[in-house]
Amino acid sequence: MLIRQSESRDDDAIWRILEPTFRAGETYPIPRDISRTDALAYWRLPDHTVFVAEDADRIVGTYYLRANNRGGGAHVANCGYVVAPEASGRGVARAMFSHSLEQARLRNFTAMQFNFVIASNERAVRLWQSLGFDIAGRLPGAFWHPRLGMVDAFVMTRTL
Amino acid sequence: MLIRQSESRDDDAIWRILEPTFRAGETYPIPRDISRTDALAYWRLPDHTVFVAEDADRIVGTYYLRANNRGGGAHVANCGYVVAPEASGRGVARAMFSHSLEQARLRNFTAMQFNFVIASNERAVRLWQSLGFDIAGRLPGAFWHPRLGMVDAFVMTRTL
Repeated sequence: MLIRQSESRDDDAIWRILEPTFRAGETYPIPRDISRTDALAYWRLPDHTVFVAEDADRIVGTYYLRANNRGGGAHVANCGYVVAPEASGRGVARAMFSHSLEQARLRNFTAMQFNFVIASNERAVRLWQSLGFDIAGRLPGAFWHPRLGMVDAFVMTRTL
Repeated sequence: MLIRQSESRDDDAIWRILEPTFRAGETYPIPRDISRTDALAYWRLPDHTVFVAEDADRIVGTYYLRANNRGGGAHVANCGYVVAPEASGRGVARAMFSHSLEQARLRNFTAMQFNFVIASNERAVRLWQSLGFDIAGRLPGAFWHPRLGMVDAFVMTRTL
């Protein structure tokens, strides 16, 4: 798997990956009916660096890296990761996380924080815990899940 | 005290209030050298509704109200409050909070979350606790305080 910084020519592939996740509305607090333009603008916010994971010349995942805050909070990184549905279970998230950890260290971040890991996304919670993240907080009822209704979300952190 | 939605003619007064807080760098994760333009752009982000508190025709505080997330997280409000240094200790923050609670309810938010209450800002932590907020999480070392060095930050939540 090759993980590299994205270019604008990757937009179609990134949207192909983001669309099913955002349409499902189960893991990201993004409107389920978000347009391609708005989704790409969100993923590519000016302070985001966006990467793509390629497997056999096909883009199977994408993530962004940014500072979670500015000023006195600028030493903590934040990332968001999405894997293409057909590539699920093949270690793409884990590979992207490993890459993001290295990139965050290169940029002198000393910690990483995920602000909103939906509690019902148990696979993600377990993955992040296995990769050194602690649950720093539980946000009661912070997310309306389209099938489950109101669920909690976790703030997860780890040092780098 | 009159609390009302801000207008563009309030920008000078808002900046007069924000500047000492942002320059001190002890309570908001904002660059201490932020410019007036960038500070006002941050305070007036497109998804923020900004209010000002007037006492005897002088603006003594300002706050913003926004949805903390979109999509499945859009039912949780987020606010930031700043009080003019000369008006400190006169209940301005409490009055603005009370106003924000009402405004948040009017907008059908069902909870409020503060994402980043610096632990060394003990007065704020106590105020929010007295106003019904719980510490939902502690973010270890999430903030570089200009005098104290690395300090924790709290995520605080309450229902509306």
